[in-house]
Amino acid sequence: MKKVVGFGEIMLRMSPPGYLKLIQSDTLQTNYTGAEANVCVSLSRFGLDTEFVTKLPANDVSQCAVATLKKYGVGTGHITYGGDRLGCYFLEKGASQRPSKVTYDRKYSAVSMAERSDFNWDQIFEDAQAFHFSGITAALGNSLPDVCMDACRTAKQRGVKVFCDLNYRKTLWTPEQARETMGSLVEFVDVLIGNEEDAEKVLGIRPKSSDVIGGRLNQSDYEDVARQIFEKFGCETIAFTLRTSLSASDNKWAGILYDKGKAYHSKEYMMHIVDRVGGGDSFSAGLIYGVVNGFEPQKTLDFAVAASCLKHAIEFDFNLSTIKDVENLLNGDGSGRVQR
Amino acid sequence: MKKVVGFGEIMLRMSPPGYLKLIQSDTLQTNYTGAEANVCVSLSRFGLDTEFVTKLPANDVSQCAVATLKKYGVGTGHITYGGDRLGCYFLEKGASQRPSKVTYDRKYSAVSMAERSDFNWDQIFEDAQAFHFSGITAALGNSLPDVCMDACRTAKQRGVKVFCDLNYRKTLWTPEQARETMGSLVEFVDVLIGNEEDAEKVLGIRPKSSDVIGGRLNQSDYEDVARQIFEKFGCETIAFTLRTSLSASDNKWAGILYDKGKAYHSKEYMMHIVDRVGGGDSFSAGLIYGVVNGFEPQKTLDFAVAASCLKHAIEFDFNLSTIKDVENLLNGDGSGRVQR
Amino acid sequence: MKKVVGFGEIMLRMSPPGYLKLIQSDTLQTNYTGAEANVCVSLSRFGLDTEFVTKLPANDVSQCAVATLKKYGVGTGHITYGGDRLGCYFLEKGASQRPSKVTYDRKYSAVSMAERSDFNWDQIFEDAQAFHFSGITAALGNSLPDVCMDACRTAKQRGVKVFCDLNYRKTLWTPEQARETMGSLVEFVDVLIGNEEDAEKVLGIRPKSSDVIGGRLNQSDYEDVARQIFEKFGCETIAFTLRTSLSASDNKWAGILYDKGKAYHSKEYMMHIVDRVGGGDSFSAGLIYGVVNGFEPQKTLDFAVAASCLKHAIEFDFNLSTIKDVENLLNGDGSGRVQR
Amino acid sequence: MKKVVGFGEIMLRMSPPGYLKLIQSDTLQTNYTGAEANVCVSLSRFGLDTEFVTKLPANDVSQCAVATLKKYGVGTGHITYGGDRLGCYFLEKGASQRPSKVTYDRKYSAVSMAERSDFNWDQIFEDAQAFHFSGITAALGNSLPDVCMDACRTAKQRGVKVFCDLNYRKTLWTPEQARETMGSLVEFVDVLIGNEEDAEKVLGIRPKSSDVIGGRLNQSDYEDVARQIFEKFGCETIAFTLRTSLSASDNKWAGILYDKGKAYHSKEYMMHIVDRVGGGDSFSAGLIYGVVNGFEPQKTLDFAVAASCLKHAIEFDFNLSTIKDVENLLNGDGSGRVQR
Amino acid sequence: MKKVVGFGEIMLRMSPPGYLKLIQSDTLQTNYTGAEANVCVSLSRFGLDTEFVTKLPANDVSQCAVATLKKYGVGTGHITYGGDRLGCYFLEKGASQRPSKVTYDRKYSAVSMAERSDFNWDQIFEDAQAFHFSGITAALGNSLPDVCMDACRTAKQRGVKVFCDLNYRKTLWTPEQARETMGSLVEFVDVLIGNEEDAEKVLGIRPKSSDVIGGRLNQSDYEDVARQIFEKFGCETIAFTLRTSLSASDNKWAGILYDKGKAYHSKEYMMHIVDRVGGGDSFSAGLIYGVVNGFEPQKTLDFAVAASCLKHAIEFDFNLSTIKDVENLLNGDGSGRVQR
Amino acid sequence: MKKVVGFGEIMLRMSPPGYLKLIQSDTLQTNYTGAEANVCVSLSRFGLDTEFVTKLPANDVSQCAVATLKKYGVGTGHITYGGDRLGCYFLEKGASQRPSKVTYDRKYSAVSMAERSDFNWDQIFEDAQAFHFSGITAALGNSLPDVCMDACRTAKQRGVKVFCDLNYRKTLWTPEQARETMGSLVEFVDVLIGNEEDAEKVLGIRPKSSDVIGGRLNQSDYEDVARQIFEKFGCETIAFTLRTSLSASDNKWAGILYDKGKAYHSKEYMMHIVDRVGGGDSFSAGLIYGVVNGFEPQKTLDFAVAASCLKHAIEFDFNLSTIKDVENLLNGDGSGRVQR
Repeated sequence: MKKVVGFGEIMLRMSPPGYLKLIQSDTLQTNYTGAEANVCVSLSRFGLDTEFVTKLPANDVSQCAVATLKKYGVGTGHITYGGDRLGCYFLEKGASQRPSKVTYDRKYSAVSMAERSDFNWDQIFEDAQAFHFSGITAALGNSLPDVCMDACRTAKQRGVKVFCDLNYRKTLWTPEQARETMGSLVEFVDVLIGNEEDAEKVLGIRPKSSDVIGGRLNQSDYEDVARQIFEKFGCETIAFTLRTSLSASDNKWAGILYDKGKAYHSKEYMMHIVDRVGGGDSFSAGLIYGVVNGFEPQKTLDFAVAASCLKHAIEFDFNLSTIKDVENLLNGDGSGRVQR
Repeated sequence: MKKVVGFGEIMLRMSPPGYLKLIQSDTLQTNYTGAEANVCVSLSRFGLDTEFVTKLPANDVSQCAVATLKKYGVGTGHITYGGDRLGCYFLEKGASQRPSKVTYDRKYSAVSMAERSDFNWDQIFEDAQAFHFSGITAALGNSLPDVCMDACRTAKQRGVKVFCDLNYRKTLWTPEQARETMGSLVEFVDVLIGNEEDAEKVLGIRPKSSDVIGGRLNQSDYEDVARQIFEKFGCETIAFTLRTSLSASDNKWAGILYDKGKAYHSKEYMMHIVDRVGGGDSFSAGLIYGVVNGFEPQKTLDFAVAASCLKHAIEFDFNLSTIKDVENLLNGDGSGRVQR
Repeated sequence: MKKVVGFGEIMLRMSPPGYLKLIQSDTLQTNYTGAEANVCVSLSRFGLDTEFVTKLPANDVSQCAVATLKKYGVGTGHITYGGDRLGCYFLEKGASQRPSKVTYDRKYSAVSMAERSDFNWDQIFEDAQAFHFSGITAALGNSLPDVCMDACRTAKQRGVKVFCDLNYRKTLWTPEQARETMGSLVEFVDVLIGNEEDAEKVLGIRPKSSDVIGGRLNQSDYEDVARQIFEKFGCETIAFTLRTSLSASDNKWAGILYDKGKAYHSKEYMMHIVDRVGGGDSFSAGLIYGVVNGFEPQKTLDFAVAASCLKHAIEFDFNLSTIKDVENLLNGDGSGRVQR
Repeated sequence: MKKVVGFGEIMLRMSPPGYLKLIQSDTLQTNYTGAEANVCVSLSRFGLDTEFVTKLPANDVSQCAVATLKKYGVGTGHITYGGDRLGCYFLEKGASQRPSKVTYDRKYSAVSMAERSDFNWDQIFEDAQAFHFSGITAALGNSLPDVCMDACRTAKQRGVKVFCDLNYRKTLWTPEQARETMGSLVEFVDVLIGNEEDAEKVLGIRPKSSDVIGGRLNQSDYEDVARQIFEKFGCETIAFTLRTSLSASDNKWAGILYDKGKAYHSKEYMMHIVDRVGGGDSFSAGLIYGVVNGFEPQKTLDFAVAASCLKHAIEFDFNLSTIKDVENLLNGDGSGRVQR
Repeated sequence: MKKVVGFGEIMLRMSPPGYLKLIQSDTLQTNYTGAEANVCVSLSRFGLDTEFVTKLPANDVSQCAVATLKKYGVGTGHITYGGDRLGCYFLEKGASQRPSKVTYDRKYSAVSMAERSDFNWDQIFEDAQAFHFSGITAALGNSLPDVCMDACRTAKQRGVKVFCDLNYRKTLWTPEQARETMGSLVEFVDVLIGNEEDAEKVLGIRPKSSDVIGGRLNQSDYEDVARQIFEKFGCETIAFTLRTSLSASDNKWAGILYDKGKAYHSKEYMMHIVDRVGGGDSFSAGLIYGVVNGFEPQKTLDFAVAASCLKHAIEFDFNLSTIKDVENLLNGDGSGRVQR
Repeated sequence: MKKVVGFGEIMLRMSPPGYLKLIQSDTLQTNYTGAEANVCVSLSRFGLDTEFVTKLPANDVSQCAVATLKKYGVGTGHITYGGDRLGCYFLEKGASQRPSKVTYDRKYSAVSMAERSDFNWDQIFEDAQAFHFSGITAALGNSLPDVCMDACRTAKQRGVKVFCDLNYRKTLWTPEQARETMGSLVEFVDVLIGNEEDAEKVLGIRPKSSDVIGGRLNQSDYEDVARQIFEKFGCETIAFTLRTSLSASDNKWAGILYDKGKAYHSKEYMMHIVDRVGGGDSFSAGLIYGVVNGFEPQKTLDFAVAASCLKHAIEFDFNLSTIKDVENLLNGDGSGRVQR
């Protein structure tokens, strides 16, 4: 079985217990997370071989990040060591009308200051069938856009399929910066993934009538957006998650997939949120799983949406659902009856 | 006041905190639980004298189980000691579309390997007015069906009223095995209790149009089921809990009671779930409380449904509600306003 | 900037973790709280200068209460020391149909046994622009009604605006006692605040058709109640919070404000409850903030309702929301999307 | 088997985790404790029938105290309900040169305000062989000295052996007050127990050369003290614990017993402290166990010292050691090797 | 680099926090442990390739055990799945005179009921340079002695060096049973390891004057024991840990090594215990590390003793010390000064 | 009362609970700390007015740091906001032979990148009587040595006494760098403080025969060192803490003070360590307290040593001891008897 390679940043996330605010707590719960690492862990739980590539400082906290990846079966043999620090962020979990709040402390992280020479993509892609990265990685700036370009080019040369989640982060760059960098990277992308905000922010393509903040999403608009992307960038497959945030506690969740000129729609789930961070990454993982296993587009989309629906009921950023868990939900049992 | 005797297994339940999965946590929260023990604790909180009978290994963990029963006022003087181990199970609490998941480690438990000679039912039933056991106890196999039969026979001889919760567990036996064993036990049962799945699995009697997995319950079907049971086995009173699982986080909850040829229906509660394990047991306890206090059938059912509705908002398997708590809900205050 | 002075009791609140009942837990989570202290903390988070006045025993637990006030920037320089004990209470947090339950242990607290000579109101009100107290403080009995009268009189003389939250507590006094004491105090009050029960219990003025226990509130009735209060007591501004308790987990929340003969209505929020204790106090703080900043009545009400809506998603009794948090909600983003 | 009756106060103890100070922690670990309750629990663990008598307010926190006693098998049938509050105290655990620090909040507790008519000693002492109380109980003041006198008189009349631990508490009374009250009570005492400070403070009898604060104890001095007590008050048996506090973390521990004119000395244990609160009570329990079982004086003392040595390695105030645990230590295995 | 293979049981250990007894706690801290698994983890931390072989039931708890091994870099590819349960044990941590106490629940574990056909030793030993097992594994009974014999024979045939820790457990077998089984296995062993009790219990060879319980160990006696073992069984290298248990909190720790007719002695460390379980296993790991790296006997012994000394200051059963940590101690810095 | 000003970095410290290593824990306990902040908090607990000056990024984590200072009464009005991040570090607490281990992540912190224009020392020193900074602050590099020089010069001009703790950190600079920078700063210092390593590393002055690593300290050597410093730099008062690290769990602790040509020696305490981080800072605080209160040199030293001895029994970096706590120890009660 050929492996899936993810490249990006892995960070230390620290959150006060439950719904406490930082100022109320002298305890932080830790986990290690990053868009592409989350994808690798989910794929590893699904049974695929995965490898996560990044640069980490050579210290005990990085060692914890690596041990976490190993625990979930993700390969760590191509991680480069050096640099000053591991990026981290603090998360206050919101509820009801109170939003979750992220305080980043990721500047100067080892990977964000990595050089092109830190990664030998030919070696990394040996035995690889797919490569996944996200817009966050490119947004880290410095040499990272070039490193991403190196990776994409090598992947293309070696016949490795390229997946990319646009993943716009306004704290990392402006829409203008994003468009410039991602514009050239997306040309290498086979399967493009985004959420209801990304297409506009990163590629400048706006769904006509949807109002994300107001909580109204119009699925047919996204077909139009996907078609424009397809026409402009030539990505074979384009998928969007569609989140309707009723409140921090209750979201609707669905997706659309546009494949070779045809749009597919998923069921919409009504979710009670346990932890929504990593929701998009779990969709990417589901999508990659479907694509590399040759699922039909509708089945791929349904799998990705169901998988990522389950993620929202799991604490922390990894989707730890198994194939069987996803299949149970796909087969119609979302009743949450106890499995004894 | 004459006591209520419960007989069955008490187990160590271990659950990761909150909604964590086992693999995410190095802490387990423990409690001691078992269908009949749960009933005894609830009845003890209601003010009845209770006695829980089982077999436990003579070790420090069993001692914790016994101390827990004592803490809640349940008599433990007829517990037999010996055997290898206390059964246990691991519970991951689900939410939204993710179901709660039980991993059992109950095989070879002391009570499951007990002998008929371990229990002197004549002594146990001295001063007893009621006996409660569940299908789980009979399902433990080995000599347990015979032990249950001994208990039922002695109860009948001594005029002790017999309550039985069918409580089908597919990990313990097949429907065929259940039907064979429970068929003969049910003939001794005065008050039979079940949930929306039990009647079919344990007694082979199927509600016509209900679809449990799909979340649709038809109350009138259960009348028909109850009538069939009454006609076939002669149980004086038959009661069912009716759970509609919208998700692991939200359930509807109601019950029906069939008493001497007449059916009674309860109000349906919309519940936000804190912990649903032990929900059925808390209904049994409410029912026993009504019956031994000579409540009218409708009042008995309403009490049992309200009591067990409250259980779903209490952590762990015991219903710690008091009579006053249940009466407040029965009197119409389900608004959850703070009681100062 | 002139300061806002609050006067009342600060107590130690102890709650078992999560939804555990007291009997299930050997851990208590502590915080320090009291109607007026909660108001001061919220105003301090909004950027106002505040001062909390009370009497505390000279011991290490009081020191924790004072340190907590300091942590949130509330002035503590006018606290008097002496007496036997700090009042405390135990809170079991409810969910769904199970109500939260308070067990008070506040009798004999230092402040409840304080003397008029313990407080020099002329000194305290130096540099003050507003004074806030609640019916709870008057309800503590002994000399407290007189102390409140001293404070109100001095405030009036010095041109300090008087705010009062009726805050009826049935464990502290009867409606008759409340009416007698509060009747004379309310005459000094510029801005009167209450919830859907207070007007009737404390002032004997009943909304015509509302049914609080049953969960039905009729907003127009409250206009009528406010008008009656205005006519009888002459308070310039009168505001009510309107809570519809669907269950302990889900509440609707709105408010009305009656200002110089005109009624204003707020939006109604549907809230998933994290912790509802302190909800009314956070409304008072929002109201005071609007009034002292000279907001228009509608803006004042909207601010107070939005601020207190956010409080329900924050653990413990303090509303730690900032002006920016409230403005985000006022500006229409109650979607709870992650703030990165 | 005839039971041992203890009478006194049971309190809620609240301690921050580990060595944290109150101001550093927003979590409190709770347990229920009191000199005589601790003795009852220890005796119950040793296998004796025990009954604890007190007065408690009728609320949920008292219910926790009662549940704790039940959990450990102590009879609670003679507890009287009423009054305002349960006494409580806060404990900061010390280490090295930093002493543990107790902040009491026990004033106005139900038992401290109990009346003589709250207790029917004739009923209570039915089937009793021994009665235990401590100087703390008498020191609660109000009617408590009279209640203690009632109990002692009834015990004497019924042939129930009276045990008393002097247990001087300077926060409850002065040496002068202690001497007056305890002077008359001690005349009823068969077995008198104290620590290295009590004899002087409570009975005015001072060991010649020991220097408690300075950490130097001279065992032979205590023989002299015991002899004086025997001569003055006629107690049959007198026992002292001898603690040498090297620091809050390390103590030496021994005891002497004076029985019918003869002194017995124990081994001295060098202890690393886990929790020293309740150390004296566990000695009393060991002593009572020896006396009611008719052990020889030396064996009684050795048992009591070994039992209470083990207590210092157990968290919270109860000595949960079993007879077997004590015997292992008595038989010379204090090596702490793992028992598998 | 050729790998080291360990074979045995991995269990779930559950311990109450701190020094709590089971009956005092409703929380258990979990870790996964077993003599040979502990050795593999320690060697993996030292940088060696390791592989742990066992049989596990196919459930979520086993998955946690496997994830733990992966986290620390131990190979899990030869684990066989099947059987009923994962063995587990409960540990109460002792202090001072109170011993730690283990309550086993390991009967019927999957590995204890494994068959010879579950393991293909030829495949397992591919690329192996060393094999480690302990007397515990043989003591599990059923087919395990035969499985161990299979492994030893195959190892010998393939030139894989055999290490064995005698590790006597009185709850698993009697000295007589141990001697019979281990007698034949030891003949295959190249490097034999034991503690101060094992030689006598397992091989019937007693150190002349040492008194383990009493805490007195005579190092020269162990030379004599090693010589006897060497003469009787032909093991090339024999090593003993020498623990002097002053109390559960303080131990002395040293070792001797007998290699080709010559005895080597280590320094003795005075240790304050954090967690002593796994101390012997960490010595085995240190020894294996020295032997496979061709260290001189004295250096091997010193390394093993220093490594295992550090283990006693680490929570849970794994020695997580790195080579650098051990070298720091070997180089004389046992001062515990903060490493910044 | 004139205030004491501290200037330096405040960091977020994160430590796994108890003695866990980072890799073993998914929980971190947080506190905010820094050499000079620790001094300010201790002085504030002693009753002095204090002000802590630093530069912090404008985010929620900084807000927690500020709230912590406020909680303990330290003035925060001169803190400058801006820059990228708050420095932080991870601490694994050691025990026995295992050292505590710090992993720093302090690079790029706001204060380390502050400019001279960020601080207006004339304003800051208004109403100040003393200024304290440490070598760590100067070691942060960039403009910090210049900022320290600005502060020292302004202090001198305004008659503010300058205290400096050498506090060498090898991860921040080399001895050569330290000597160059500190050489010029020390000329402004009135009271110089150091530990047993600092004088050599920072000033190049070595005690003749002491061996810090080996745990042997020769007090008379430090007299000689102090004399050399006095002669070379002219500091009025020079004080050293003398720590003998027996292990991470047990340390001896003493100090010497050299004042106007005369040396003073303290008692040596044998300490069982709870948390040794911040020990030196608590000595500085004690020294400052003595000097600003005009204590005699011997009393100043004794106070500082006793205060810092108590710190070692307190968790986290702040010395929360009160004057009364220190006086109790000074008066000879280091017995750790419970204070009731």
